[in-house]
Amino acid sequence: MFSFEIQATCPHTGARAGILHTAHGDIETPVFMPVGTQATVKGLLPRDLINDLDAKIILGNTYHLYLRPGHETIRQLGGLHKFMNWPRAILTDSGGFQVFSLSGLRKITEEGVMFQSHLNGDRHMFTPESTIDVQLALGSDIMMVLDECLEFPASHEAARVSMERTIRWARAAYAHYRAIGDDGNRACFPIVQGSMYPDLRRACAEQLLELNADGYAIGGLSVGEARPVMFNVTEETAPHLPAERPRYFMGIGDPEAILRVIAAGIDMFDCVLPTRLGRTGSAFTWEGRLNLRNARFARDGAPLDEACTCSTCTRFSRAYLRHLVTQNEVLALRLLTVHNLSFLLNLTRDARDAIRTGGFAAFLDASLTRLASH
Amino acid sequence: MFSFEIQATCPHTGARAGILHTAHGDIETPVFMPVGTQATVKGLLPRDLINDLDAKIILGNTYHLYLRPGHETIRQLGGLHKFMNWPRAILTDSGGFQVFSLSGLRKITEEGVMFQSHLNGDRHMFTPESTIDVQLALGSDIMMVLDECLEFPASHEAARVSMERTIRWARAAYAHYRAIGDDGNRACFPIVQGSMYPDLRRACAEQLLELNADGYAIGGLSVGEARPVMFNVTEETAPHLPAERPRYFMGIGDPEAILRVIAAGIDMFDCVLPTRLGRTGSAFTWEGRLNLRNARFARDGAPLDEACTCSTCTRFSRAYLRHLVTQNEVLALRLLTVHNLSFLLNLTRDARDAIRTGGFAAFLDASLTRLASH
Repeated sequence: MFSFEIQATCPHTGARAGILHTAHGDIETPVFMPVGTQATVKGLLPRDLINDLDAKIILGNTYHLYLRPGHETIRQLGGLHKFMNWPRAILTDSGGFQVFSLSGLRKITEEGVMFQSHLNGDRHMFTPESTIDVQLALGSDIMMVLDECLEFPASHEAARVSMERTIRWARAAYAHYRAIGDDGNRACFPIVQGSMYPDLRRACAEQLLELNADGYAIGGLSVGEARPVMFNVTEETAPHLPAERPRYFMGIGDPEAILRVIAAGIDMFDCVLPTRLGRTGSAFTWEGRLNLRNARFARDGAPLDEACTCSTCTRFSRAYLRHLVTQNEVLALRLLTVHNLSFLLNLTRDARDAIRTGGFAAFLDASLTRLASH
Repeated sequence: MFSFEIQATCPHTGARAGILHTAHGDIETPVFMPVGTQATVKGLLPRDLINDLDAKIILGNTYHLYLRPGHETIRQLGGLHKFMNWPRAILTDSGGFQVFSLSGLRKITEEGVMFQSHLNGDRHMFTPESTIDVQLALGSDIMMVLDECLEFPASHEAARVSMERTIRWARAAYAHYRAIGDDGNRACFPIVQGSMYPDLRRACAEQLLELNADGYAIGGLSVGEARPVMFNVTEETAPHLPAERPRYFMGIGDPEAILRVIAAGIDMFDCVLPTRLGRTGSAFTWEGRLNLRNARFARDGAPLDEACTCSTCTRFSRAYLRHLVTQNEVLALRLLTVHNLSFLLNLTRDARDAIRTGGFAAFLDASLTRLASH
């Protein structure tokens, strides 16, 4: 069932347009995946994701769901799709990134990573095998292997040691997945690490190719490095991944970066930025980010973005959104999140259309110029 | 345009079924009106109120909207209906109740009430005339006159003095409304006061009849008195109001009380209880109120209420709702609010159907017995 089909490639950049076929529907790529950390994209119902955004796939966070409500609870209740009433595809991370960024004490051994819950300090352990088990219990369509998420900056030697452990973990996870989880209906992606060192990234990619995996992710970027470094490492790494498999850049979600990673040949990406901006009262627009707390919007009857056709922009004014934001009304989160996600999903769909019609290079230039003008 | 039509009366109780005709649509009565304090029913969009609940009228709070974003801002942006994108009817209170319950320092004079904003301590004054002006700026379909909201308990003498001021204010407000606001498309209701003293309530009602108002409200109940007292005062007061005009009980919203005030001849009521319960993780059911924080719901795949057909109960389990509540996810507020409002709106619609088919007395008995069994 799970497969990836490339429909068009850009002759001037690495960009590709394709379709991911999953047991929970087809996903046109490139695709931005909204993040539903705790079995909910904050403030939105599945019907909003479908009717307002036509999102085809969302992300769930294994670390959070493992802690609360627990993957066994979700399994007993019929899996994550049924639990949250989401009929389309779900990608879950391995939990590794959250273990490294959220939990308090953590200890890495060859076996896996011991950590304390950020909620109550309870001790837990994730191994390459156990995180596959958790994701199988959740019923994920696309799972990730456990990787070590190194801090930035890291020396070449530290990055090499860490990258090699990531490869050993990926082999262990993949063997477990092949043994108990690979029924053809789901997918499992290993993750390329190697910090900011192109030679390590390349070595990592080449060794992971031996797994003949369903797809490949690039992790450990957007962790504090300069943006040109991030784009450069992505551009250097993507060509070493098999052209016929989907490529997933973990954790990027601003308009400029989305365009640049698409140009580098990335097919999938996710980020909490659009929902986090919504929570803090900010909106993506072609005029730059708007902070709705700004008093200049108090009597502004215009929509967030004149060009936007989302269900927020066609119904509500900046003045109303500013009112909701300043009064801490939860509807602000919902309306801004719909707009921000819509902005990224539409940008990505436009990029896809441009790839398919051969105009991506021009679209990229024009869009980057437009974004940079504010 | 504004008118009230009685379709059926119960031969055994005071209950009536009717239709309020407004410039923003017809409203079948009895009707429960969801509260949208700050130009939003917390967490819900207008489309949810329409598609999920078929709510025909909502409440706005004049005190809050006067302070933020300001009634002149709302007027400039096309009125409250346009501001919040709500096409159906809106009832606004006079702001009096909030002035008395929320603001810090307040000083009552014959002219009106001076108060300090609960937001920043700024000083303001509401007069009978100014609160009509504010409500006209908002574009309310049904406005309330300014009344004095006396604390409970109050002596007969204090209640008499206060009630008489309420009448003088009602006369002033109504004269202003007749002069500048009474275009036939909207309505204005005076408010019967008199604390827990039936003789004062009757005297107040009789004097307010001289205004030949569009409808009448009963205020100053559900303020701390025993429930039998509240029901008794309502039953004693309603018959002194003109049968052909709508009667509005201000601030009641639990299932038992709704049934009892309907039986007393009340046509309209509102309360923040269903939304407030939603915010605190609780739900109305025929098994009593459920607190979703309770661990017994952790793996409960059943809906909140087996008999409920709302969009929450048909899609989500108690276990999922408990997960959202315990993780402080905003979706919990939204899903529980939809259910709680649906519960009250459906209860009220069932009461209306029973009145129209002659079975209200039996429906009342059966429903009260069912509610009391938990």
